[in-house]
Amino acid sequence: MNEFLEGGDPKQVALVKSIFLQFERDPVIATSPEIYDLTHEEKRELTARKIARLAQYLEKDTPEVWNMRWHLLNTFDPQLSTRINNNLGLFHNCVRGNGTLKQYHYWTVTQGSAKIKGICGSFGMTELAHGSNVAGLETTATFDAETDEFIVNTPHIGATKWWIGGAAHTATHIAAYARLIVRGVDHGVKIFVVPLRDANHDVMPGVSLGDVGAKMGRNGIDNGWIQFSNVHIPRGNMLSKYDKVDRDGTVHNAPLAQLAYSALLTGRVGMVYDCFRYGSRFITIALRYAVGRRQFGHSPDGEEQLLNYPLHQNRLLPYLAAVYAMSATGYKMKSYLKGIIDTLDTSVKTGNTKKIGGALTEMKTLFVISASLKSTCTWLTASLIDECRQACGGHGYSSYSGFGTGYTDWAVQCTWEGDNNVLAMSAGKSVIQNLQKVLKGKSLMGEFAYLNSYSVAASSPVLNGSIDNLQNLLSAYQTLVARLSGHANEILEENKNSWESISVHQVSISKVFAHTYVLGTFIKRISSVSDAALSEQLTNLAKLYALSTLNQYSSLFLQYNVISGSALAEVQSQVGMLNARVRPQVVGLTDAFMIPDFVINSSLGSYDGNIYDNYFSIVKRQNDPSRTKAPYSEAILEKMLNRKDLNVRERNERSKEVLRLLGTGIE
Amino acid sequence: MNEFLEGGDPKQVALVKSIFLQFERDPVIATSPEIYDLTHEEKRELTARKIARLAQYLEKDTPEVWNMRWHLLNTFDPQLSTRINNNLGLFHNCVRGNGTLKQYHYWTVTQGSAKIKGICGSFGMTELAHGSNVAGLETTATFDAETDEFIVNTPHIGATKWWIGGAAHTATHIAAYARLIVRGVDHGVKIFVVPLRDANHDVMPGVSLGDVGAKMGRNGIDNGWIQFSNVHIPRGNMLSKYDKVDRDGTVHNAPLAQLAYSALLTGRVGMVYDCFRYGSRFITIALRYAVGRRQFGHSPDGEEQLLNYPLHQNRLLPYLAAVYAMSATGYKMKSYLKGIIDTLDTSVKTGNTKKIGGALTEMKTLFVISASLKSTCTWLTASLIDECRQACGGHGYSSYSGFGTGYTDWAVQCTWEGDNNVLAMSAGKSVIQNLQKVLKGKSLMGEFAYLNSYSVAASSPVLNGSIDNLQNLLSAYQTLVARLSGHANEILEENKNSWESISVHQVSISKVFAHTYVLGTFIKRISSVSDAALSEQLTNLAKLYALSTLNQYSSLFLQYNVISGSALAEVQSQVGMLNARVRPQVVGLTDAFMIPDFVINSSLGSYDGNIYDNYFSIVKRQNDPSRTKAPYSEAILEKMLNRKDLNVRERNERSKEVLRLLGTGIE
Repeated sequence: MNEFLEGGDPKQVALVKSIFLQFERDPVIATSPEIYDLTHEEKRELTARKIARLAQYLEKDTPEVWNMRWHLLNTFDPQLSTRINNNLGLFHNCVRGNGTLKQYHYWTVTQGSAKIKGICGSFGMTELAHGSNVAGLETTATFDAETDEFIVNTPHIGATKWWIGGAAHTATHIAAYARLIVRGVDHGVKIFVVPLRDANHDVMPGVSLGDVGAKMGRNGIDNGWIQFSNVHIPRGNMLSKYDKVDRDGTVHNAPLAQLAYSALLTGRVGMVYDCFRYGSRFITIALRYAVGRRQFGHSPDGEEQLLNYPLHQNRLLPYLAAVYAMSATGYKMKSYLKGIIDTLDTSVKTGNTKKIGGALTEMKTLFVISASLKSTCTWLTASLIDECRQACGGHGYSSYSGFGTGYTDWAVQCTWEGDNNVLAMSAGKSVIQNLQKVLKGKSLMGEFAYLNSYSVAASSPVLNGSIDNLQNLLSAYQTLVARLSGHANEILEENKNSWESISVHQVSISKVFAHTYVLGTFIKRISSVSDAALSEQLTNLAKLYALSTLNQYSSLFLQYNVISGSALAEVQSQVGMLNARVRPQVVGLTDAFMIPDFVINSSLGSYDGNIYDNYFSIVKRQNDPSRTKAPYSEAILEKMLNRKDLNVRERNERSKEVLRLLGTGIE
Repeated sequence: MNEFLEGGDPKQVALVKSIFLQFERDPVIATSPEIYDLTHEEKRELTARKIARLAQYLEKDTPEVWNMRWHLLNTFDPQLSTRINNNLGLFHNCVRGNGTLKQYHYWTVTQGSAKIKGICGSFGMTELAHGSNVAGLETTATFDAETDEFIVNTPHIGATKWWIGGAAHTATHIAAYARLIVRGVDHGVKIFVVPLRDANHDVMPGVSLGDVGAKMGRNGIDNGWIQFSNVHIPRGNMLSKYDKVDRDGTVHNAPLAQLAYSALLTGRVGMVYDCFRYGSRFITIALRYAVGRRQFGHSPDGEEQLLNYPLHQNRLLPYLAAVYAMSATGYKMKSYLKGIIDTLDTSVKTGNTKKIGGALTEMKTLFVISASLKSTCTWLTASLIDECRQACGGHGYSSYSGFGTGYTDWAVQCTWEGDNNVLAMSAGKSVIQNLQKVLKGKSLMGEFAYLNSYSVAASSPVLNGSIDNLQNLLSAYQTLVARLSGHANEILEENKNSWESISVHQVSISKVFAHTYVLGTFIKRISSVSDAALSEQLTNLAKLYALSTLNQYSSLFLQYNVISGSALAEVQSQVGMLNARVRPQVVGLTDAFMIPDFVINSSLGSYDGNIYDNYFSIVKRQNDPSRTKAPYSEAILEKMLNRKDLNVRERNERSKEVLRLLGTGIE
């Protein structure tokens, strides 16, 4: 089963195991419950220490191994992986995507950022007043023909670079998004490598920076703000794969501008994979607790296992199925992107414009799919963590359960790398635009092909008593995407093409589209499994995922007449039956994730299932019971409890005698 | 408008204002952004300091003023209010509800816990292995006839008292839930006052206790664990309003056992009120940000205000409407409970058994309603905070926005005072049981009366084009409650009365029941508003609440044929129109909450709307920009970046020469 989870590749299984083993034995990298008691300052320092350690692995790893290493870090120490990613992910992808090969080689190899040696980069897009709207950024880079330099400036507080990962303490350079100004003309937002700190790690003159401070989660990352005041950088520091400024100030604009944002794709695509990994950790904790915990009921040996309650099954098992489903899509997305980038690289090198065009079309499709998947899957994973916490009752609220940090670390995934609502709107819009092509008689290829069968007239229920077949279910999802898009398109036309009038619909379309994609990918992967027993288990999970998600979106399925009311009742009862069918396999299905205890890092979710002993010993280790008084007990608590009576403290000024004495008015 | 929000009572408005003003000027109580950077230890100490300060207010306040003071604390410093509540709420209500008047007077007045003077109580119900199932608790209190004492014991690790608020450092006594054992017979769970610390604040012999450590939120509370090892307490320490043990060991059982759990009601009932207050704080922050923040678009003065986007309106304005709706129910619940308790107190005193019976019936009803409301409204408020945070984009993730702490502090509300799912199941069950009475021909009174009109046959859509009328909407909600219960009851009968088979339905019923109740209460309150302009604004909010909630639960409304598919489309478009209608009033509607800036305590939500300046100055105040290097910069970061080349660090042992030298095998 774990082979299935790891993209069906035994090599991946071996790789995951070997990296986890290295990390488990590495005293700097392995996590323990202690991290739940660290202060922000301590988190920062520990994370820096881990980065220095990881830099040693980095010098030896192949890119493939490092990539997996990084994704696995994401599962148990996301502040660490993010802090590294500012340089190795965002900075590198940005320079690779927007710089020439020379520039890429210079900054990463010659200067050493690829090994976090010599320099360390960061990614400087967002500003205090500008997040999602990249075209509206206000930092300027003005070409100075005299010195052959750009002069970088922050014109006002709103243009302060904000949230820049590593800016507060770590980064030496930043890939800064800034408006290119040449001879007074604004050429739009381009990217410039700007040094922040010199080789002594001292901040450069003209650069003001600071720490943006405490965050909801991931406090191990030193996010910062930066203001530039007449900072001069050489002309060659502008990333010039597509945009160039000549010595004389002539500006060459991007022939392939679409590629400029490709830097954003890598992060977004990898996040589906992280949803699978991160989700697998928390569903494992909640399910192990639900097996170990007993409550109410009348089982022969006392109370009943939580997981034997249908409601509890219904709260958790659909998420287990979703994690399995996301594993297939996570691996697929990674290879999808790799294929496109490889094609692009070779075809750009050979100047094959037809191939470039094909790859660009593919990239556009991936842009839509990944926007839809990123938003839908990160939301799903946030809900999963929260539901898993609640399913562990009060103990889920203990930091040592892992859920608190798990949730607060995760929450930002719904916002960065493209705000989920903005991404969903954009993906939904693309789906509608594809449907518009169908309505104009065009036949679509690839991932949108199922829209071809959309017909305005057809509106009879698709699912009516045939819900036990995965292909039927998939086509129900596809029909819903088409009908929902068709309906949104009608409203759009009624409202003079105002996309704002259907923004709510766009988000819904994106969500259903994403689930359709995940389901389709899952079904396809299952069809390649030859082991009959395995295939049966996976088919149950796929059905559970399909039907429980259908139930979650049943309002749309009903409203667009994809399912009848009676069939929906059948769906709901079928979900209950599938829960019961999956229940006995829960231990095997969670063990298949192969997550070592140090990654689980939860008082409630260890492999041995010994909840209460583990929990109590962690609590005692982290909070010495011999300290029965707090440092402030005497000064505050005892002083309060043993304070004198109120009348004494008021100097008896409100005693009856005094009140009479002063209140009579008679001398 | 603020009069409407404060229960329609100008005295409450004045009270809220005067308390907020006192707190704002009180240097110990007022909060500031600094709290977002405190360590757990610092939070503990600051909270203790605030309690000592509040004890002074407590000595002077009337119960009514103190009650409001406490609720207002909940809005901006929930760890503080909870830590106080362990004593003044849970301990006191427990002693009042289960002890004789003598006992109540002794512990609260004579010993002083009512003023947190002399002693300080805590509430000892949950155990490590037992939360919701009170009847399953395992701590024992064994009567020792020889000494006329109870001997309290923790038989094993699972029976360790857990989560006990104040146990780690503050509390001197605990109201401990334990099994009463007399002459070897287990008489079930009773309550005993057990001293934990002596007057020197030293832990008593036989008592082992410790800190349960870090939590997801509310770390200012010193929750602890306790184990008892042969702790002797006098017989009179058993709370004996209903249960008594005579000197000779004769046990008198509770004639009114239902009352024993009434201690739990006060907390639960007050939580609806807290949903209103807490929700109002976070919706205000998000809406002020949405007014101040501009993004994309083509408004004349640059980018568009976020709140002018229909999607953004749709994310936030229904929550604004829900907060208004919850204000009405919050105030109603408080007076509802007060009425019952007053009746009970006088009728118990006078021995009026008929009146006692009536009050008990009312209390049962309130039990159901409050269980349903507590779970539904706390979930709603959790979603509200999370959506508000996401609606503030990346800046919502900054601790200084207040959302992170706001969410993590709130999250436990869905778990304690009765786990939301357990409460919802229980409330849903009661609704079904009431419907069963109707099916048997009985006519219901009071809050369940609308179930009387349920008919198995009737199944035509109730709402069909008449969605602009609040009474129609209310009756649609009521019909849904009835039909859903009717359907669940059918499944129940098919499954041989196995309630587990319909647990998922029970939760749904509870949610819809709660919204029906909130809507009904809101409508009734609005009908008493004479100002026409005010009434119109409130009516729009009520419609927005009713229709957006209907849309959220539209799957059920469709499935049970309460609404037709075409009417639902109309609902969705109506929600958009109502959003647009409420939009211009947003500033007034949020200002009406009268929340001072120190309570808002957010970089994004100050009254002056000056987002970026406020935010930047908080960030700089909390993170001194002159500290450009971290304490660990040199030792870790610079050392890493300036490390020697790998081959040097490997002592050239992998150089070509060495590899050739050692690898040839030739001597």
